[in-house]
Amino acid sequence: MSEKKRTASTRGKPRTPAPSATTPATAPATGEGGGGGLSRRRLLTTGGAAGAVGLALGATGGAVGHAVAADSPAPLTGLGATAVPFHGVHQAGITDRAQAHGHLLAFDLLPGTDRRGAAALMRRWSQAAAAMTAGRSPDGDTQAALDAGPSSLTVTFGFGRSFLTAVGLADRVPEALEPLPAFADEELDRARSDGDLFVQVGADDALVAHNAVRVLRRLAAEAARPRWQMTGFNRSPGATARPMTARNLMGQIDGTNNPVPGEPGFDEAVFVPQGGEPAWMAGGSYVVVRRIRMLLDNWENLSVERQERVIGRRKSDGAPLSGGDERTPVDLGARGADGALAIAGDAHVRVAAPESNSGATMLRRGFSYADGLREDGAPDAGLLFVAWQADPRTAFTRVQLKLSRGDALSQFVRHEASALFAVPGGCDPDGYVGDRLLEG
Amino acid sequence: MSEKKRTASTRGKPRTPAPSATTPATAPATGEGGGGGLSRRRLLTTGGAAGAVGLALGATGGAVGHAVAADSPAPLTGLGATAVPFHGVHQAGITDRAQAHGHLLAFDLLPGTDRRGAAALMRRWSQAAAAMTAGRSPDGDTQAALDAGPSSLTVTFGFGRSFLTAVGLADRVPEALEPLPAFADEELDRARSDGDLFVQVGADDALVAHNAVRVLRRLAAEAARPRWQMTGFNRSPGATARPMTARNLMGQIDGTNNPVPGEPGFDEAVFVPQGGEPAWMAGGSYVVVRRIRMLLDNWENLSVERQERVIGRRKSDGAPLSGGDERTPVDLGARGADGALAIAGDAHVRVAAPESNSGATMLRRGFSYADGLREDGAPDAGLLFVAWQADPRTAFTRVQLKLSRGDALSQFVRHEASALFAVPGGCDPDGYVGDRLLEG
Repeated sequence: MSEKKRTASTRGKPRTPAPSATTPATAPATGEGGGGGLSRRRLLTTGGAAGAVGLALGATGGAVGHAVAADSPAPLTGLGATAVPFHGVHQAGITDRAQAHGHLLAFDLLPGTDRRGAAALMRRWSQAAAAMTAGRSPDGDTQAALDAGPSSLTVTFGFGRSFLTAVGLADRVPEALEPLPAFADEELDRARSDGDLFVQVGADDALVAHNAVRVLRRLAAEAARPRWQMTGFNRSPGATARPMTARNLMGQIDGTNNPVPGEPGFDEAVFVPQGGEPAWMAGGSYVVVRRIRMLLDNWENLSVERQERVIGRRKSDGAPLSGGDERTPVDLGARGADGALAIAGDAHVRVAAPESNSGATMLRRGFSYADGLREDGAPDAGLLFVAWQADPRTAFTRVQLKLSRGDALSQFVRHEASALFAVPGGCDPDGYVGDRLLEG
Repeated sequence: MSEKKRTASTRGKPRTPAPSATTPATAPATGEGGGGGLSRRRLLTTGGAAGAVGLALGATGGAVGHAVAADSPAPLTGLGATAVPFHGVHQAGITDRAQAHGHLLAFDLLPGTDRRGAAALMRRWSQAAAAMTAGRSPDGDTQAALDAGPSSLTVTFGFGRSFLTAVGLADRVPEALEPLPAFADEELDRARSDGDLFVQVGADDALVAHNAVRVLRRLAAEAARPRWQMTGFNRSPGATARPMTARNLMGQIDGTNNPVPGEPGFDEAVFVPQGGEPAWMAGGSYVVVRRIRMLLDNWENLSVERQERVIGRRKSDGAPLSGGDERTPVDLGARGADGALAIAGDAHVRVAAPESNSGATMLRRGFSYADGLREDGAPDAGLLFVAWQADPRTAFTRVQLKLSRGDALSQFVRHEASALFAVPGGCDPDGYVGDRLLEG
């Protein structure tokens, strides 16, 4: 099947609206016709989303009968039209905004898949990802996303240590890819840990995300089979007037201390530099994936005051208990009127802070998950923790060793699965992800 | 904890835009201050979504480095600001547009919960649902949705046959609530079937939906415990220029033949009439919930032509194989040039058609689901089938008996769980769902 153009195919650099409640945010991006090498620029004519602030219908208030469809579907807006380019110095899906829907998968190579077969797989996958992220129908399309725009779809590929061994490249295993140590409080399910190949799919539309997973599954064909798959979510674009405030399923504001792209030290913390080792990882990053179940029934039985003491931040607005607002730096030395530390000795923000971990910094970009009930009736829900860094030995591992020994939060979470992957830099349109490893 | 107003609280009748790709659709609804009895109307000043079609930033195209955040979060739009009223003649979540995220749950009463305890639970639940759907923080809030607008949240409650028996009201069991018969091809997991109480939660933001589930879980307290929970999704508003076209995970356009609210016969097909039997179900409906796993690996191995023959519609646009476009009525008698039936004898649309089932009509309003991998490596994914009707005996049951005997699609799906609930009409602000049953 050749690549066909989807309805409302677009391609272009996503816009970056200011995080202000009065800024229009879902404007249609400038589009580029995406089909077959065609690069004619055009403006989307689908109308985007609503216009004037004053455009509001009369509300009746009070009781209505729900006798008619109350809320028809919305046509294409920036949510659907936005495309995140697949090609580049780095892979997409790392510094981009985390989308509303995410799938994390690992694949294992099937017996008989050698370096050549792995290279062919990565080429098929990269070509399909490039098409889908631009809003085009890929080879092997299952067509579940046929009518949708790219919806900020990103596809990110990584290699496990076992992959390099399997394709005869054990001599190229990066030092940074050494297995994570065992941590004191983890209860890992090996069947949902590790894996040869990592795939992260994110999109603001669930069908677009799921279709991408199915396409990649089909293209894996006889070269690799799925090992595990996890599905998660983040807040939908447009759901809140405070879009920079992300809450996890515990209700706590999360990610405040994340490093910010463009600020000093960000690239050094997250990406392997050009000229770094090994050469095939230049522009790449290392990703730690952890399935962290939250004991929500227990957590929600705590008073808000006790929850705040466990975390070290106010629940309502994320301000550190040392004072200020969400963006105020945490003052680990601050004491209350009674002389006690404002932020407890075992508070999560203290134990996880860079100051407590020799400056260890990573970019957390995870998804919440809710997979129904466990056999014991407790919710199977929590955080798909996804952390990006230039070297996990001096970032995730350093922080997690500390957390596993003295974090008040640890009694309310269970680390159930874990994986570490080397995520190469991005590729050119003529190449594929991993080409510098597999062709070099 | 008293009810507190959330950021961007709104309340009002959602607008009903025409299903045209050029109609603005996510305009902010007119808001009503939602806190503490306050009913001051106000216009949201959050800007809604983007304005002019011409408002587009220059696209760079080609490779970019992803070195900066490519796509900041969007502030509040109609997606977050839209509120669907909880009170009314019918419950919400039936004729409204199916939201992007959905949770289906059953609870079982705990030993010792009598009619009085059940009534207290339904009052707590109804009050919390009324608050949350209006964008207010309910009693028992876990605060994971604290910064979000109501995001079209709906909460819908139903009663299983076992509920009526447990609270001493076996004499009020509706005839229409008789257990569904066994169907030929089902493989039901009883632990994920049936249940005393049904809760359907839907919202266009995943955290809003999940928080509502947690709040209801907390309020169940010692009266009821969760029996099963399933989580699903639909297309995000704004993801497509063809918003009326819903595809399932098989890639097939689904729901074309659904009855349309406001058209003749709709209310009679879906709702128990005023004056109907039993009196406590006036304005109510019966919901059939089925977890239908799709054998996607098998399905996707078929050619598109074979997939279309199984369904009876073209995959690309949903047009029946008897000709026309998606909205053209299916012509079951049409024959091709070779004299063969255009729509095969065992095609899904033929076997499920009202004409094949004495006019049986139901309103399907389901969610897709994707719960990772099964132990055999196949995807645990498919359809959370949710169908609404005035009497399942002459609607779902009639159709499913036929499907289970001769539907070509049946070899690609597995019915894994099943439940039937009586969903009473809506309540007044002073009442609660089920009050006419439990107080009567």
